[in-house]
Amino acid sequence: MTSFDIHNADNAQLQALQQQLQQAFDQLKAAGLNLDLTRGKPGSEQLSLSNALDGILAGNYTSDSGTDTRNYGGLDGLPECKAMFADIMQVTAEEILIGGNSSLTLMYQAVLFAWLFGYGDKAKAWKDDGKTSFLCPVPGYDRHFAICEAFGINMISVPMNEHGPDMDSVEKLLREDKSIKGMWCVPRFSNPSGIVYSDETVDRIARLGQIAASNFRVFWDNAYAIHSFTSDAPALAPIMDACRRHGTEDSVLQFGSTSKVTFAGAGLAYMAASKANLAAFGKHLGMSSIGPDKINQLRHLRFFNGHTSFAEHMKKHAALLKPRFDIVLDKLAGHFSNSDALQWTVPEGGYFVSVDTRPGLAKRVVALAGELGVKLTPAGATFPYGKDPQDSNIRIAPSFPSLADIDKAMDVFVLCVKLATVEQALA
Amino acid sequence: MTSFDIHNADNAQLQALQQQLQQAFDQLKAAGLNLDLTRGKPGSEQLSLSNALDGILAGNYTSDSGTDTRNYGGLDGLPECKAMFADIMQVTAEEILIGGNSSLTLMYQAVLFAWLFGYGDKAKAWKDDGKTSFLCPVPGYDRHFAICEAFGINMISVPMNEHGPDMDSVEKLLREDKSIKGMWCVPRFSNPSGIVYSDETVDRIARLGQIAASNFRVFWDNAYAIHSFTSDAPALAPIMDACRRHGTEDSVLQFGSTSKVTFAGAGLAYMAASKANLAAFGKHLGMSSIGPDKINQLRHLRFFNGHTSFAEHMKKHAALLKPRFDIVLDKLAGHFSNSDALQWTVPEGGYFVSVDTRPGLAKRVVALAGELGVKLTPAGATFPYGKDPQDSNIRIAPSFPSLADIDKAMDVFVLCVKLATVEQALA
Repeated sequence: MTSFDIHNADNAQLQALQQQLQQAFDQLKAAGLNLDLTRGKPGSEQLSLSNALDGILAGNYTSDSGTDTRNYGGLDGLPECKAMFADIMQVTAEEILIGGNSSLTLMYQAVLFAWLFGYGDKAKAWKDDGKTSFLCPVPGYDRHFAICEAFGINMISVPMNEHGPDMDSVEKLLREDKSIKGMWCVPRFSNPSGIVYSDETVDRIARLGQIAASNFRVFWDNAYAIHSFTSDAPALAPIMDACRRHGTEDSVLQFGSTSKVTFAGAGLAYMAASKANLAAFGKHLGMSSIGPDKINQLRHLRFFNGHTSFAEHMKKHAALLKPRFDIVLDKLAGHFSNSDALQWTVPEGGYFVSVDTRPGLAKRVVALAGELGVKLTPAGATFPYGKDPQDSNIRIAPSFPSLADIDKAMDVFVLCVKLATVEQALA
Repeated sequence: MTSFDIHNADNAQLQALQQQLQQAFDQLKAAGLNLDLTRGKPGSEQLSLSNALDGILAGNYTSDSGTDTRNYGGLDGLPECKAMFADIMQVTAEEILIGGNSSLTLMYQAVLFAWLFGYGDKAKAWKDDGKTSFLCPVPGYDRHFAICEAFGINMISVPMNEHGPDMDSVEKLLREDKSIKGMWCVPRFSNPSGIVYSDETVDRIARLGQIAASNFRVFWDNAYAIHSFTSDAPALAPIMDACRRHGTEDSVLQFGSTSKVTFAGAGLAYMAASKANLAAFGKHLGMSSIGPDKINQLRHLRFFNGHTSFAEHMKKHAALLKPRFDIVLDKLAGHFSNSDALQWTVPEGGYFVSVDTRPGLAKRVVALAGELGVKLTPAGATFPYGKDPQDSNIRIAPSFPSLADIDKAMDVFVLCVKLATVEQALA
C-alpha cells in the first residue's frame, strides 16, 4: 500500500486514476453492502459486559443507608450513588445530582431552566436578557447544537486545536460579546476530534467566569471521562478544583452518564455543579419529576462495588473498542499518510475519529459512500446549523459494527475519499 | 359511638364538651405519636407484589420484535409495550408514547412544549398568544397546580360535583375567556375526591375542542385507571372514542403510569394522544432525550404477559388498600354520619379520601393533628395557589401506614375535627 499522492500527477494520469477508482467503485456497488459508521453506540459485546445488572439485587431493594428504592422519594439520588459518581467527576458528593437514563436530558433541562428561570437571584433568565449566544467549539456534537436551535440560541463557532478550544478566541469573544451565555465542551476524548483538553485550557475555561456575565455557564459534557483505550491516555484536570481556585464555582455545569459504561439506553445520567446551581436546578426539577429511578441506581452500586470496578470494567470495553479504532487508523495511515488528501485525529479514547478531506469534499464523500451502502454521519453535522464552512469534516464512529464490517466499510471510505479528491482535481 | 351533633347544644354543654375533648387531646399529646397521612404512596407490601421485576429477564434483553433493549434507539417505546398500555388507555398503540418513570415529567413536558413551541402549525405557542389560563377543577392535585405556577399560567377554579367538574361552568368559562388554554382532569378516582367522571361529563369534555381555541388541551391525568377496590367500581368512558365522534382528537392529552401498579419510583409513565400531537411532542422530546429505558419496558412486558396480569395484580393491591380505606370511612361514619361537622367522599378506588370541615376549620384541624404527631396534607394544598377559599378541604391518604397506625391516626383526626368544631361554635 502506498500513500495516495496526486500532487505531481498530470491530467492524463488523473484521468487514468479516476477510471481505475470508478471501476473499483462500480464493483463494490454490485456487492450491495449495508454498513453503518454513523452512531457512537456500543456494540453488543460491550453491552453484554453489564448483563449482570438485571437481577443483581436478588430481591433486596433496600440501599445501605436504608432507603426502599422501590418507592417515591429523593430528587437527587441515593447518597452512596452520588459518592460513586463524585469520584469520576472529581467533585464532592454534595455537588452531584443523579437523573434518569440520559445526560442529554439533564443538559436540555439545564439550558431550559437557565433560559426560562435563571439560576438564582444573581443569574437573570436568558429569555429576559436580550439575545442569547453560545460558543460552540468545532467540530462538535450535533445534539448540543440541536438544543441551542430549539431555544433559538445563536451559535458562534470557535476552532478546536490539539489542546482544546482556541482559548485566545474564546476569551476575546467573551469580552466583546455580552450576548454569550454559554459554551459547549466535551473535554476528554472530545466528540468528534478525540482530543483531551490540556491543563492550561481547563484552567483558562475555569477562569471564564471572571470575565463573563453572571448568567454565563460552561456546559462541560464529560461523556467519556473514563473511556480511554490504554492506561496511559492523557488525564483531564479537574475543572471544579480550578473553579474553586478562581472563585468561579457557579460558572460550570458538568454532565456525564454510564450510557457507554453499562447500558446505552438504561444507564444513569448525572450532573455535577456548585451547591447553589444544584439548589436552583433542583427547585425547577422538582416541579417536573417524582425523582429518578433509584432501583437502577442501586443496581449500579451493587455492580461497581462488588461485582466489578470501574477500572476493571472499562478495560474490558477498551479491549473491544481498540481493535476497531486500530482498523480505522491503520487504513487511514496506509492510504493517506504524507498525503494532503486527508487529515485525521488519533484518539486515545472515546467513540470517534474525526477526519478532514480537502475543502469542499465532505458531502461528496458521504454521498459516494452512501451509494456503496456505507452510511456515514451527514457532512456538516459536526458544525452549528449543520453547516461546515469548509465542507471538509466527517465523523467516523466504529464502535458498533463488527471488525470485519469496519474493515469493509473503511475500504469503501478510502475509495470514496480518493475518488472525490481526483474528481475535484480534474474539475 | 353516636354521631357528633352540636346543633342543639347550649353554651354550657359546648363548654363541657370542649373540656372533655381537650382532656382527650392532652392525653394523646403525651403519647408522642408520629404518624403520616399525607402522601399517596404505596405501602411496602404493595411494592413487594412486584419484586419479581428485577431479574425477570433472566439474561435475555431482546424484545419479541427483536430490539436489543440495552442499546440506544427508539423515542416512543417498544411496540409491544405501547400495545399493552393502549389497552389501559383505550386508544390504539400508535397513540401511545412511553416515557421514563414519571407521568408528571410527561405532563410538565406537554405544558412546556405547548407553552414554548405549540403543537404543530395550527396550535400557536402559548407564550406568543397573550395571557394563558387553565381551568382547575377543585379540589384537585397540587402538583398539577405547581406546573401552572412554574409557567406563570393563571389558574381558574371550577367546582367538582359527583359527576366530575361542573360542566356548565366549564363551558361558560371557555366561551367567555379566550385565555383558557388548558384544563386539568383526574377522571377516575379523582385526586382527592375519588369520584369517577360520568359518561356525560366525559362526552362534554371531549366536545370542548369544538368551542375552545385550537391550542387548547385537556390534560387527562388518568393516574388511577385500573386502581379500583372492587370489580363493580364505576368504569370510565373512553375519551378518545368520544373525541373521534366529535372530531376533537387533538384537544386531549392523556397520561398514566405504573407508579401505583408496580414500583412508585421505578415504573413506566406513558402518554396517549392523537398522532398529530404525538408527532409534535416527539419532535421536541427528541431534542432532549436519547429515548426511554427500554429494559424496564421489557421487564414490565414479561411481568404482565406471563408472570401475572393487570387484573390479577390490581386485585392484590385492592386487598391491601381496601381495609385501610375501610378504617378511614368507618371512623368518619361512626362519628360524623348525620352530622354537619364533616362531609366526605366514599371512593371505590384510588388513593384518597376528601373531607370537608365546616368553613374556616381545615387549617385548624391540620394544626391540631400536627400537635398530636399526625401529619396531614397542608390545608389548601388541593386548591390553586394553595388557597382554599372556604378553608374546609383536607385530603386523607391512608395507603402507606399500617392498619394499626391508620386506626390511631384517624382517632386523632376525629378528635381534632370535633375540638375545632366546638371551638368555633363557642367563638
